[in-house]
Amino acid sequence: MAGNSIGELFRLTTFGESHGGAIGGIIDGCPAGIALDLNAIQAELDRRRPGQSKLTTQRKESDEVQFLSGIYEGVTLGTPIGFLIPNKDVKSADYDHLKDVYRPSHADQTWQAKYGVRDHRGGGRSSARETACRVVAGAIARQFLAQHGIQVWGYVDSVGEVELSKNYLSLDPAQVDQHITRCPDPGTADRMQALIEAVRKEGDSIGGSIQCIASGLPAGLGEPVFDKLHADLAKAMMSINAVKAFELGSGVKASKMRGSEHNDVYNEVGKRTTNQAGGLLGGISNGDDITLRVHFKPVATLMRDQSGVDKDGNAVTVKGKGRHDPCVVPRAVPIVEAMCLLTIMDHYLRQQAYR
Amino acid sequence: MAGNSIGELFRLTTFGESHGGAIGGIIDGCPAGIALDLNAIQAELDRRRPGQSKLTTQRKESDEVQFLSGIYEGVTLGTPIGFLIPNKDVKSADYDHLKDVYRPSHADQTWQAKYGVRDHRGGGRSSARETACRVVAGAIARQFLAQHGIQVWGYVDSVGEVELSKNYLSLDPAQVDQHITRCPDPGTADRMQALIEAVRKEGDSIGGSIQCIASGLPAGLGEPVFDKLHADLAKAMMSINAVKAFELGSGVKASKMRGSEHNDVYNEVGKRTTNQAGGLLGGISNGDDITLRVHFKPVATLMRDQSGVDKDGNAVTVKGKGRHDPCVVPRAVPIVEAMCLLTIMDHYLRQQAYR
Amino acid sequence: MAGNSIGELFRLTTFGESHGGAIGGIIDGCPAGIALDLNAIQAELDRRRPGQSKLTTQRKESDEVQFLSGIYEGVTLGTPIGFLIPNKDVKSADYDHLKDVYRPSHADQTWQAKYGVRDHRGGGRSSARETACRVVAGAIARQFLAQHGIQVWGYVDSVGEVELSKNYLSLDPAQVDQHITRCPDPGTADRMQALIEAVRKEGDSIGGSIQCIASGLPAGLGEPVFDKLHADLAKAMMSINAVKAFELGSGVKASKMRGSEHNDVYNEVGKRTTNQAGGLLGGISNGDDITLRVHFKPVATLMRDQSGVDKDGNAVTVKGKGRHDPCVVPRAVPIVEAMCLLTIMDHYLRQQAYR
Amino acid sequence: MAGNSIGELFRLTTFGESHGGAIGGIIDGCPAGIALDLNAIQAELDRRRPGQSKLTTQRKESDEVQFLSGIYEGVTLGTPIGFLIPNKDVKSADYDHLKDVYRPSHADQTWQAKYGVRDHRGGGRSSARETACRVVAGAIARQFLAQHGIQVWGYVDSVGEVELSKNYLSLDPAQVDQHITRCPDPGTADRMQALIEAVRKEGDSIGGSIQCIASGLPAGLGEPVFDKLHADLAKAMMSINAVKAFELGSGVKASKMRGSEHNDVYNEVGKRTTNQAGGLLGGISNGDDITLRVHFKPVATLMRDQSGVDKDGNAVTVKGKGRHDPCVVPRAVPIVEAMCLLTIMDHYLRQQAYR
Repeated sequence: MAGNSIGELFRLTTFGESHGGAIGGIIDGCPAGIALDLNAIQAELDRRRPGQSKLTTQRKESDEVQFLSGIYEGVTLGTPIGFLIPNKDVKSADYDHLKDVYRPSHADQTWQAKYGVRDHRGGGRSSARETACRVVAGAIARQFLAQHGIQVWGYVDSVGEVELSKNYLSLDPAQVDQHITRCPDPGTADRMQALIEAVRKEGDSIGGSIQCIASGLPAGLGEPVFDKLHADLAKAMMSINAVKAFELGSGVKASKMRGSEHNDVYNEVGKRTTNQAGGLLGGISNGDDITLRVHFKPVATLMRDQSGVDKDGNAVTVKGKGRHDPCVVPRAVPIVEAMCLLTIMDHYLRQQAYR
Repeated sequence: MAGNSIGELFRLTTFGESHGGAIGGIIDGCPAGIALDLNAIQAELDRRRPGQSKLTTQRKESDEVQFLSGIYEGVTLGTPIGFLIPNKDVKSADYDHLKDVYRPSHADQTWQAKYGVRDHRGGGRSSARETACRVVAGAIARQFLAQHGIQVWGYVDSVGEVELSKNYLSLDPAQVDQHITRCPDPGTADRMQALIEAVRKEGDSIGGSIQCIASGLPAGLGEPVFDKLHADLAKAMMSINAVKAFELGSGVKASKMRGSEHNDVYNEVGKRTTNQAGGLLGGISNGDDITLRVHFKPVATLMRDQSGVDKDGNAVTVKGKGRHDPCVVPRAVPIVEAMCLLTIMDHYLRQQAYR
Repeated sequence: MAGNSIGELFRLTTFGESHGGAIGGIIDGCPAGIALDLNAIQAELDRRRPGQSKLTTQRKESDEVQFLSGIYEGVTLGTPIGFLIPNKDVKSADYDHLKDVYRPSHADQTWQAKYGVRDHRGGGRSSARETACRVVAGAIARQFLAQHGIQVWGYVDSVGEVELSKNYLSLDPAQVDQHITRCPDPGTADRMQALIEAVRKEGDSIGGSIQCIASGLPAGLGEPVFDKLHADLAKAMMSINAVKAFELGSGVKASKMRGSEHNDVYNEVGKRTTNQAGGLLGGISNGDDITLRVHFKPVATLMRDQSGVDKDGNAVTVKGKGRHDPCVVPRAVPIVEAMCLLTIMDHYLRQQAYR
Repeated sequence: MAGNSIGELFRLTTFGESHGGAIGGIIDGCPAGIALDLNAIQAELDRRRPGQSKLTTQRKESDEVQFLSGIYEGVTLGTPIGFLIPNKDVKSADYDHLKDVYRPSHADQTWQAKYGVRDHRGGGRSSARETACRVVAGAIARQFLAQHGIQVWGYVDSVGEVELSKNYLSLDPAQVDQHITRCPDPGTADRMQALIEAVRKEGDSIGGSIQCIASGLPAGLGEPVFDKLHADLAKAMMSINAVKAFELGSGVKASKMRGSEHNDVYNEVGKRTTNQAGGLLGGISNGDDITLRVHFKPVATLMRDQSGVDKDGNAVTVKGKGRHDPCVVPRAVPIVEAMCLLTIMDHYLRQQAYR
C-alpha cells in the first residue's frame, strides 16, 4: 500500500536509500525448480551500472548482487528470493549543500511534503539507484520466460531530435550493446553519441526514448478491464524515474488516424500483416509482438547553476555538482526491459492460475 | 487478480456483459458520512450515454443507475456501495453474424484464446459499456474530493489532425459540455465536428485525444517507487477501451528536450512558473495542477466491409453493421475524468492512512 | 481494504444491508467453461434460509439469487459473476425502538464508533444476512472443486453441553440434512433439538459448534508462512458472525498433549494412521482429510428484557422483540462449508499458478 | 500471493531459510517520523532467541538484527525498512540424514509435494526461525502503538495439564519475563518448569497455550465482514508454526453457554462489567481489552526414535537428534505478541485512512 511492491503473483518488493547500508529486495512467487544462471543476472545489472562508459556518470557503483535465500544448489526453491546490493563509492558529503534545498524538477520538495522528513543524501530513495533491484528481478523473470519461448529486448530509439526511424523488425538485437548509446543502428547511434557529448559539454542534459519488444507470448495473457496487460505495462514503465509518456503499438499516432488505416485487417489466409495493435487486443495478448515506447525527460541535475528554493521558501542557487548522466536512456534500456519482463511474468502466472 | 477491480483503499469492482441482465459494481472503501447528490451521479452517467447527440451511436442505452446499499437517508454508511445499471435497448440478434467471427482490431480473438468461451453479443464484457460503472464510481469520488478542494475536468484536445493548440489555462471548463464534441474552443470544436461527420459519411472512424486536469491537490499524494501517482494514473487511463498512449505534463515532447528547457525552475520569490512536471515530482503531487493527455485509437467497427477471420482461421468478410460512434472521444471525456478521480481519491485515502 | 472481499484468485466481494434494496456480490476469478447447476446453488441458499424449520427464526427471507453476469448459456465466461438477493419480508418498523440503542453483545456500539453513522434496521450490514452471499459463492466453488475430486461437508457437533462424541468417519454425510439440527447422529440430534426448544421457551439462546471436513485435496495446497491454508481457513471461519474459536485437527487438545501422543507417525508400509494434524503440515495439505471445528457463541438477541445503553451512555432496557434463532448452528452449517470451499478453491488456483 | 507477506497498510514481507545466508524482511508502510529505540527491538528478539535458558534448545542463534534502510538518524523515513538477521551457529551436517526423509508431523512431505524441491537443512523455510523476522516488525509496531496508548502483552497460560487458572487482570505483566517459563504466577510457573524438564528427560515434548491481551485500543478498529479484527488476529496466530487453535474472549466455552450468561450487559451507569466478547463486537474493537488464547501442539521432534517415511514411501526410523525445545510456548510469547501488534497496527492505519 506504501507502494514498494509490484506484481501480484510474481511480486517484487524493494527497499533502500541511495546512501544507506544497502538496497535490495524480495521476489515472492518465483516458481520452484528453475535452474538460475546467476552470472547472467549480474551481467544484466552491469548493463545498468553507472560508470560503464564515458557517456554515463563516473560514479562507480559496483552493484554486486548477493542472494540470501530462495535458491539452493542453483535452483529456485519456490520460497522468497531475498537479495542485497551493498552501497559503495558513496560520497555523502557531496550532498551536504542540498540538505535543506529543493532542486528544480527533483523530488526533494514532494518527499518533504509527504513525509516531513527525508534522507537527502544521493536523493535517498528517490534515486534511480532503486531501479537496480528491478533489474535483478527482471533478470530472473527473463530466465523463466525464456524457457517458455518469450523474449524481451529494448533499444534507444531517440535522443533529443535524433530519432531512429526504422522498424524494429529490420534491427538486430545483438547490435544493441555494441554501441554505448544502446542504439542498434550504427549511424544513428553515432549521431546520438555526438549529441549527448555536446550536451554534456554545455552542462546540460537531454531526453530520449526507448522502444521495447516482447516476442513469443501465447495469445491470452492479460486480464481484461482494469488489469489489461498494457495497462500494467504502462504502470510499470511510468514507475521508472524520469518517464513522462507511454505508447503501445501505434501510440500517440493512433489519435491522428482513421479506422480504415489503423485496423489490422486479416489477409486472404486469415493472418494479420500489420501490428498497429502492438500485440494486444482488449488488453489481452494476441500472439503478435508486443511493442511499446517509453519517453524519458532530460535529467534534472545540470552541471550549471539553477535556481531552486530552500525549505523555507527562499530562492537559492543550486550549484551544478555531483556525478550524473547527461542522458539516461542508454542505461535505462535494461530497466525498461526488466519492467516489461516482470509484468509479463506476472501475467503469465496469472493466466496459469485460471487455466 | 482477474482484474475487475481498481484501487486499493477506494476500490471499484465491476461486473457485467453488454447484453447480460445488467452491469454494475461495488465501491468498497467510501468513507462514511458523505451526503451524496444522486442526481449529480446520474448526470455524469448521462454525459457518457450513447445516443446523446447526433455524433454518437444511436443505440439508446438509458443507463439508469440504481443504488442497492451503502447509502442510507442520502448519506454514505462506510459500507460497500452496490449499484446496478440494467441493460436495455439490447438487440442481441444484431450480433448473430459475429458469433464465430473475429473482427479486425477487436478483442474477439483474444477473449476466445484466453477463456475458450465468450459472450459475443455486443462485445460481451469487452464492450465499452463496462465503463459506465467507472463513471458512477468517479462521480462519487468527485463529490468527496470536491469537499477537499480537488477538482478534475477534461476536454477533447484533438480529433484526427484537428488539434486544439491552446493551453488549458486559457480555456473555460464550463464550455466543455456546450459543444457536442466536448472541445471548449468553439472554432476548433466546429472543425472537429465537421471532421467526424465527414468520416462517418465515409463509413470510417477517427481517433482523438483528451486532456485532463486535476487542481487543488495538496502536495504529498502518491506513493514513490511503484505506485507513483502518475503510474497509477497511466494504468487507469490505459485500462480504458481504445487508449493507446498516455502523457504526463510535457509527455512525449520531454524526450526531445534539454534539461535547461524542461526544468521547472524557481523564480526570485521561490515559486515555479512553469509546469512541465505535470504536477508530480517523483510520483508525488507537488501542489501544481496535474495535467495529462490520453490518446484514443479510431473505433475498430466501420460501416463498411472489412476482412476478418473465423474461429477456424478462414478469412471472412465482416459487414459494417450495428450502431457505433465514429469517434469515441466526446463520450470518453467523463470516463477519463472518472479514472482520474478514482485514482486521486484512492491516493488521498492512502496518504491519510500514513499521516 | 475496507474488508468486504475475501480470496486472492477466487475473490468474493459482497455488499448489502439487511433492510436495503438487496444484498449481493461479485465473484471475480471463477475459471471459464464450468457448466453450473444453478438449482444446486439455490438449494444451498435454501439450507441457510431463515424460516426453514421450527427451530429457526420465523422471518421468511425467500433468498432467491439472481445472476446478472459471468454466465452465458449455463457456462461460466471467466468474467465476474454478479449476483443479487433482493431483500423481502423486511419489517423495518420492528427496529424503530433500536435506532439510538446499543444492544448488549451486538455490534451497534462499535459500528457507531467506527462510522459515526449506521443503518440500524435489522442490524444493517452487521446482520448475518450478509452470509447468504457467501453461500452463493461457496456453492459455485463446490461445483468447481467437485470436478477435481474435492468434497466439503459439515455438521453440528455440539449444542450447549450436548456433544456428539463420535469421529466423523463413523458418520454419514447424507444424514446431516435429515434432521433439523443438522446433526447426523439421530439420538444426539434429538437431544440437541430438545435443548434448543427448552432454551427458546425460556426466551434464551444457546451456543454450539460445527465440525467441517474437506476430503480429496491433493498434497501441496496452501502457502507456507503467512498464508498457511489453515491460517486462511481460520480467518474465513472467524469472519462468520458469532464465531469465537477455531480448531484445526487436534485443536485445543493439542496444548495438553505430548509429542509422543500427538505425532502422526508412519506405519510399516509408510502410511499415517492418525490425523492429529487435521490434514495440514506446515500450512500445506498433506493429502489427508482437513478437519476443523468452529465454535459459535449464543445469539445475543434474547426474547427477554436485557439492559443496554443508549448513544448518550444512559442505561436502557432492551425489549426482547423481533424474530431470531435461539441457536444458529443448524443454519450455520452451509455457511461454514461455504467459507471452507471458498478458501480451498482460492488455494487451488494459487497452487495452479505456480505449477 | 505466495504468502510471504502479512498486513495491508503495515506490511511485513519475510525471506530466508534456516541455513541460508540470512533471514530478513521488509516492512512497508511504517509511518515517517517515528524515533525508534533500536535496542528495544533487539531486546524483543533476544526474548525469542534459542539458547536463552536451560528450558530451550541449546542452539545459540545470536539473532542480531541489522537495519539497512528506512531509518535515518534514528527516525523512520516512511520508506521501507529492510533488515537482516544473519544465520550463525549453523550445523547443516546435522541434517544430512534427513535429506530424503519425511519426519512425522513435520512439513517435510508437504513442502516436497508442493515444490518438488526443498532445502532440508534445519527445516529450510519451514523452520520457526522465520518468526524472528516477525518479532522485529512487531517490536516496531509496539513502539508506534505505544505512542497511541496501545499495549500488548502475553504469557504462558498452560503447559500440558498445568494450567494457570487466574484472570489476567490479577496478573502482573512485569512478572512474565521473571520466570523462564514466561508464566507470571510463580507457583504455576514452577510446576510448568518441572513438567517441561520431566518431559525432556523422557525425550518427549509437550504442548501449551498462550494468553495475549491488547489494551488501550480506541473503539472502531477492525473492518466488518471479512476483515474483522479478530479474523485477522486468528489468521496471524494460526500462521505461527505449531499453532492448532485460536480463541477470542470466551472462546471454545462460548459454544457451551446460554445467551443470558454470555451477553456482556450494561450496568446502571451504562457500562459493561464483563468481557466475554474479548474486546470486539462485530469484528470491531469496542474499547475493552482484546483477549485471545493460542494453543500450540507439542514439538514434533523428539529425542527418541520415531517412524518416518522416505521419499519413495518406505518406512524409516528417524533418530532423535539435533537441538530442539521440548516445549515452545515460553519462547513463543514474543511471537504471539508480535503477531498481535502487527495486526492491530495494520488496522490502526486502516481506520486512519477512512477517517
